[in-house]
Amino acid sequence: MYAFGSRGNTGPNFNLLLLIISQLGLHTVEGVWPLPQALASSAERYSLNPQAFDFAYGKRSAAQQGCSVLDAAFKRYFTLIFQDYTSGRWNTGLETFSQLVYQDDSGSYFVNKTEIDDFPRFQFRGILLDTSRHYLPVQAILKTLDAMAYSKFNVLHWHIVDDPSFPYQSYTFPDLSSKGAFHPVTHIYTQSEVRRVISFARLWGIRVLPEFDSPGHTKSWGKGQSNLLTPCYRGGTPSGTFGPINPVLPSTYQFMERLFKEVSSLFPDSYIHLGGDEVDFSCWRSNPTVRSFMQKMRFGVDFTKLQAFYMENIVNITSALNKTSVVWQDVFDYHKRRSSLSVVEVWREGCYLCEVRKVTKAGLRVILASPWYLDQAGPKHNWARYYSVWPLAFKGSEEQKKLVIGGEVCMWGEYVDATNLAPRLWPRASAAAERLWSDEKQTSSVAKAFPRLQDFRCMRGIQAEPLTIGHCQHEYLGV
Amino acid sequence: MYAFGSRGNTGPNFNLLLLIISQLGLHTVEGVWPLPQALASSAERYSLNPQAFDFAYGKRSAAQQGCSVLDAAFKRYFTLIFQDYTSGRWNTGLETFSQLVYQDDSGSYFVNKTEIDDFPRFQFRGILLDTSRHYLPVQAILKTLDAMAYSKFNVLHWHIVDDPSFPYQSYTFPDLSSKGAFHPVTHIYTQSEVRRVISFARLWGIRVLPEFDSPGHTKSWGKGQSNLLTPCYRGGTPSGTFGPINPVLPSTYQFMERLFKEVSSLFPDSYIHLGGDEVDFSCWRSNPTVRSFMQKMRFGVDFTKLQAFYMENIVNITSALNKTSVVWQDVFDYHKRRSSLSVVEVWREGCYLCEVRKVTKAGLRVILASPWYLDQAGPKHNWARYYSVWPLAFKGSEEQKKLVIGGEVCMWGEYVDATNLAPRLWPRASAAAERLWSDEKQTSSVAKAFPRLQDFRCMRGIQAEPLTIGHCQHEYLGV
Repeated sequence: MYAFGSRGNTGPNFNLLLLIISQLGLHTVEGVWPLPQALASSAERYSLNPQAFDFAYGKRSAAQQGCSVLDAAFKRYFTLIFQDYTSGRWNTGLETFSQLVYQDDSGSYFVNKTEIDDFPRFQFRGILLDTSRHYLPVQAILKTLDAMAYSKFNVLHWHIVDDPSFPYQSYTFPDLSSKGAFHPVTHIYTQSEVRRVISFARLWGIRVLPEFDSPGHTKSWGKGQSNLLTPCYRGGTPSGTFGPINPVLPSTYQFMERLFKEVSSLFPDSYIHLGGDEVDFSCWRSNPTVRSFMQKMRFGVDFTKLQAFYMENIVNITSALNKTSVVWQDVFDYHKRRSSLSVVEVWREGCYLCEVRKVTKAGLRVILASPWYLDQAGPKHNWARYYSVWPLAFKGSEEQKKLVIGGEVCMWGEYVDATNLAPRLWPRASAAAERLWSDEKQTSSVAKAFPRLQDFRCMRGIQAEPLTIGHCQHEYLGV
Repeated sequence: MYAFGSRGNTGPNFNLLLLIISQLGLHTVEGVWPLPQALASSAERYSLNPQAFDFAYGKRSAAQQGCSVLDAAFKRYFTLIFQDYTSGRWNTGLETFSQLVYQDDSGSYFVNKTEIDDFPRFQFRGILLDTSRHYLPVQAILKTLDAMAYSKFNVLHWHIVDDPSFPYQSYTFPDLSSKGAFHPVTHIYTQSEVRRVISFARLWGIRVLPEFDSPGHTKSWGKGQSNLLTPCYRGGTPSGTFGPINPVLPSTYQFMERLFKEVSSLFPDSYIHLGGDEVDFSCWRSNPTVRSFMQKMRFGVDFTKLQAFYMENIVNITSALNKTSVVWQDVFDYHKRRSSLSVVEVWREGCYLCEVRKVTKAGLRVILASPWYLDQAGPKHNWARYYSVWPLAFKGSEEQKKLVIGGEVCMWGEYVDATNLAPRLWPRASAAAERLWSDEKQTSSVAKAFPRLQDFRCMRGIQAEPLTIGHCQHEYLGV
């Protein structure tokens, strides 16, 4: 009943051909989110009998029985589609198809005859969660993964540590969390919890991309690891405060190598995010040891060279661990030897497409985040703003456009924790999701998208806030 | 152990004198929200034994054993104070006291010797919930009442119906909800549900003030009650659309009388809110019957006179039912015979204190809402904004100041439903709560309030969003 076809290795691509049982009547399909690349729906309606319903792997599909991700998806979607039907049957379908199934007043299930050809526009469709500024309980992360899958997001960018706290529990350096987390027991992620997140994500078709941002944004690292941060000086003596990671000590790189070795083996994804944003040079500048290192290296007074030196060392460490590194755009901006970089995440406001153009011109891959900073709230930050983003609207060659591998919704944690994460993400993140999944020409109209998104936000019991006055058939009750 | 004193009838006033068992050590009280009028805390620490702990009515207290509200409060607060102690004992204490009790690492309970003298600054401390633009499940309303009590709010202003939907199920006019609600079964409030809300609120010391806003904001009323709304005309013929309630038909007032009779008996509060805001005169102007009524009444072309005529009729209906009417400021603004009015709610932006001054000069009571429109989100709408409100900072006599009976947080429902109600209300509404409860001189500093509010937002498992980077000892887990 379901045919899968593969179009290379860029995500969950499939063609759907729905051949269903018996025709019954007419129904207007209310819409699917994000919009498939091609969807031809007819008025022909078929009834679905949960007891006779089955999904099978297509004969020509690259995936075959035993594929744990699809098997798990079948199970999940069977329950989602046939909500009233609580048998132990495990075969189910997928998101787009499930959104096409509806019930009549008597509770029977129907689907209209529909042909779907679908694949993602961009291979990288991410959401960044920040667990340093506020700790997010694992349950909140799993709930987010669940909601992400409904919008076809496929990357969780886990900004796991930062200045305020270090909740990642390292085996190699246990003091990092025991001294650097908000609480050494209740506000940490154990390795088994991290594994739980990763394996849950995997079954939803979501990669987990960890970020260990350095050399800035590392205040919390210093609490559990002495001699890691740069001692700042005032008037020729140490002031007692600390700056970015100290780039002049060999011990720094030994530490980072051991940390990334552990992290690389725990997080199976081929990407790793190294941060590199917003480094404040004032502390480095104040430190006499750093200054004499600068002289020795002939960096003059250009501290961007020192940061480039540091980042190149970190990139080399992770390359040796077979990881593709992602860095924030700052690293690209000051780097001379750009060929050592791989993927650049563009995050600054202003002409972000100018930056995308520059990065792709240098032959590097781009993840676009600037227009999708959803941690911001208020009337100006509505879904339509996040929908009206055109990631490829810059002057550049076809090769350059191909280097834009996707985009990312950033949910920074200054004002966000488990109390407000879900309604701040949803349904606004779904607007970005459609931009990243669907064909741009078919989804250029905010007005046309509106009723589909209205329907979508009520689905699945996600705590998605309202777009405007109205109601859901089933109101959110998890209050 | 607990002494209650009464200071008249303006809300839960009490003096607390804590006389507790055995001294043990030192502790710094982290703060109480909202700040009591007087709180003198000493370093003397007493241990509390849940098994021996008891509350008693003060001998001179107006309230004595058998007072159901206090008895229920005792029970509730015993559990809140002694969270680890799950015996069947029922006597408990009250909010301020409960916030002073703390545990040491071994789990023992302590309170520092403290004398508290407390009473509210304003008698009316309300929160408006709008259940027309989005339906709020009863559970979400009860949760809100629960959270309101912790901030010492004492009025739920239930804006129960409006243009988009009519969820109130009337016995007298069942079609109002069966045709005017978003759904006639799942999106209504039955009379028994309304009673449940009222009796729950009562035990938390909260009044329920219902609003049936008219003659504008009544589109949904027209669906279940024909000949109630004014037919609009275009080019001499009815256009098929309808405007505000038709003020020229006797049947209108017969309908309103029967509706308010039912409503007045269901809602025991002595106040009733009659709305009266934002009436669009264009439909009235278009209607020939309305125009000839205007002529007959010698209103000329001044439709504010027609609205005043309408409102005066409604006020008379509810006065005859022994209710004190509250109206939005619009009604005051155009009313000539202001003596027929009682309580005016000031809601418009701009110089709201100018309006407060005018209304109190006319000898009418005021509820201030303008500065507390919390349905708005975004960085400019932070807690400090709602804290920095000075309701009595207008030129006026002592008598005028006394007429400001309180204030109200408005949570309009355009973009709010059960998915985001709690984090949008809390902790920002608590900032307004302290302004309405506490002494202004003692609570004029945002900086001093900040750490207390930080602590407060983590209490009681309320889904209160973060103020800034940080953490709660017990993170919100209801995700």
